[in-house]
Amino acid sequence: MSERWISIDRERSARRIERDIETLAGPDYTRSREAIRRYAYTPEYRNTLDYFIKELEAVGFRCTEDPVGNLVARNRPAGERVFGIGSHCDSNRNGGKYDGTMGVAAAVEVCRLNEELGLNLPLQVISFLEEEGSGFGQMVLGSRIVAGRVSEEELRSFRAIDDGRTFFEHAKEAGYEPERWRECARILDDLVGWIELHIEQARVLEDTGNRLGIVDAIAGYVHADITVRGRSDHAGATPMDLRSDAGLVMAECMLELERLAREAPGDTVGTVGEVELEPNLINAVPGRARFSLDIRGVDEEAFRGVARRLRDFAAESARRRGATSEYSERQSLSVTPLDKRVVGALEEAARASGEPYLRMPSGAAHDTMCVADRVPSAMVFVPCEGGVSHSPEERADPADAALGAEVMLNAIRRLVAAG
Amino acid sequence: MSERWISIDRERSARRIERDIETLAGPDYTRSREAIRRYAYTPEYRNTLDYFIKELEAVGFRCTEDPVGNLVARNRPAGERVFGIGSHCDSNRNGGKYDGTMGVAAAVEVCRLNEELGLNLPLQVISFLEEEGSGFGQMVLGSRIVAGRVSEEELRSFRAIDDGRTFFEHAKEAGYEPERWRECARILDDLVGWIELHIEQARVLEDTGNRLGIVDAIAGYVHADITVRGRSDHAGATPMDLRSDAGLVMAECMLELERLAREAPGDTVGTVGEVELEPNLINAVPGRARFSLDIRGVDEEAFRGVARRLRDFAAESARRRGATSEYSERQSLSVTPLDKRVVGALEEAARASGEPYLRMPSGAAHDTMCVADRVPSAMVFVPCEGGVSHSPEERADPADAALGAEVMLNAIRRLVAAG
Repeated sequence: MSERWISIDRERSARRIERDIETLAGPDYTRSREAIRRYAYTPEYRNTLDYFIKELEAVGFRCTEDPVGNLVARNRPAGERVFGIGSHCDSNRNGGKYDGTMGVAAAVEVCRLNEELGLNLPLQVISFLEEEGSGFGQMVLGSRIVAGRVSEEELRSFRAIDDGRTFFEHAKEAGYEPERWRECARILDDLVGWIELHIEQARVLEDTGNRLGIVDAIAGYVHADITVRGRSDHAGATPMDLRSDAGLVMAECMLELERLAREAPGDTVGTVGEVELEPNLINAVPGRARFSLDIRGVDEEAFRGVARRLRDFAAESARRRGATSEYSERQSLSVTPLDKRVVGALEEAARASGEPYLRMPSGAAHDTMCVADRVPSAMVFVPCEGGVSHSPEERADPADAALGAEVMLNAIRRLVAAG
Repeated sequence: MSERWISIDRERSARRIERDIETLAGPDYTRSREAIRRYAYTPEYRNTLDYFIKELEAVGFRCTEDPVGNLVARNRPAGERVFGIGSHCDSNRNGGKYDGTMGVAAAVEVCRLNEELGLNLPLQVISFLEEEGSGFGQMVLGSRIVAGRVSEEELRSFRAIDDGRTFFEHAKEAGYEPERWRECARILDDLVGWIELHIEQARVLEDTGNRLGIVDAIAGYVHADITVRGRSDHAGATPMDLRSDAGLVMAECMLELERLAREAPGDTVGTVGEVELEPNLINAVPGRARFSLDIRGVDEEAFRGVARRLRDFAAESARRRGATSEYSERQSLSVTPLDKRVVGALEEAARASGEPYLRMPSGAAHDTMCVADRVPSAMVFVPCEGGVSHSPEERADPADAALGAEVMLNAIRRLVAAG
């Protein structure tokens, strides 16, 4: 194949990506009128897969779904080597139009361009199930299953947020064979590389005036909860000295987490996003507090150290106030370094595009974390307005996604040619 | 009348009070199996009033209910001067057996003793409606109506927590005439004095080894909310420096309130009991935080100063973090000094009883706050185990309530005799 730069009609690509996204924001594709809300095994999610299947079949792809419902579309028979592209098309419960969906739309656009331009690149699109965890409270579930980062026991224990019934029950009812989940790993078997396009979900690209981010690492994270048990008392009748206020331990921990994260290297960030007091009454001293921890970074030792130090701080703060604290990890993932060759090809293509881009880490988790173990991988970010995501206010520019598709197309062409 | 000390059979009185309380903890009198839960216009509340009416009629009292449902029972015709005793018999949603109910039971016991001992004291029992606010989210509602501390407009705006229908609708459905609420004021017309017995709801009596508290003032309070608006962002992808985290403003305010309350005189206390974050997700920086303030004390300037300083602190903390804060008062009440003569008579009777007692302020709000404007008033506290109240774990000793009844009986006898 030629090494020449392939130029595309970016405006036409942007229009097609925009049409995909706006169509999928319609009432058949979301369970909420106020936001995009779609998740595994709902009619709205099914409609979304069917939309992409139709688009992909139109350009000669054969579409299948693996035993739990990850969508796989190829323009080569099984066993032949292909380059993987895609993202996810489920959403947050109160989500926007772009998170995930724009990545699948950009991947589909790469397939359309491949057909129109007669490039004959061997491609495989994947749309992963349940990246956001809106159905079963489990983030990056589809790609974790593919990567074998979940046990049979765990998988059988997951329950739907809506009705408490199991993941297995729901998957079977939707026509899948979840007991064959181990076979999902095969969907990566033929991949020579993987690129996921996604909105950035922060303001770094916007603030630095760049149209693309070439992602060279994905932050690792710890998700945990701390539960503090003090003593609930009457808020009016209990002198300050006789209290054991679980809420104040929580407040101290929230501020200490901020301090520790700011102090740590490796772009470490720490957030208390969920809080809960009991009894949660205006006239009662909180007897119990529960709060979540989200601690991330690209320096493994740094972000894990913050989690450990906060756990110890909580124990000490609770002790000083006559309370106890309990630290419980929900999930943790190590830093995912991305593939130098794929990152390099993307960077070269981005440079050739003439548009401003930035090499950067991803603070957010993505399905690519689970792919990168087995397949040389990278990611492309596009800006989103004000960094807003996981919200109906989410905005991104289809023109940036079209640029991303052009850059991916060129990078894949070079990587496939180089073998 | 003689000035001689009247001794009662305390054990018999304790058994009767215990029987009242245990009966009213039965399934006909609570809407929850796990706790006492009764509030205005429910069948369980009706059954509770009927139980007390039966007990009072048995010792010659005539029982009526005012236009909203405050229970009034007298052993003298209207227009004759009487001494008032009572409390409330509604509960917290997750309440215990003693809060309120023990005070009505002790008042009924005073009536029984008056009859048995042939004392012929002119008495009026009141059981106030909705002290806890479990039905309509409005604390001390019955006594506020009696005191005219509510406007027609407010009263018409109150809605049931259960079904959102108005207070007026519910009251009418229960057979009352809420549009005549102004006439409720009349139930205090004939009172020459008022005493309410109540559990302490704190640990001061227990910790100091006293069986009775003679209450000489009720703390004033401010109930308010602060709402902080920052910006919700992705918890992984947003560097610490680019955040406007509403939760951290809340955390700073929680700790500042503790500091300000500890520093203030007049037994000032301050509590953040209710908190709420939005979107309240583990992986989202909180964009909005709302938290309640409960600030009380017997030094008017001190506790109101704490509320003002916290409001200013919140504004400054929000500003520093690129957020805004809004302070909104729900309700506030001034300190209620109690009547020296009634307090003195109770203290003298307590001393004569030979049992350990303590003069003390009440940190908690009580219906007596609304009575004391018009009628010389005081309160008697009995200990509750560990200070626990507003909980099914609430425990108090009927023997202490019997001692309280004896002390009230003797104090009333002296006050009535003195004219």
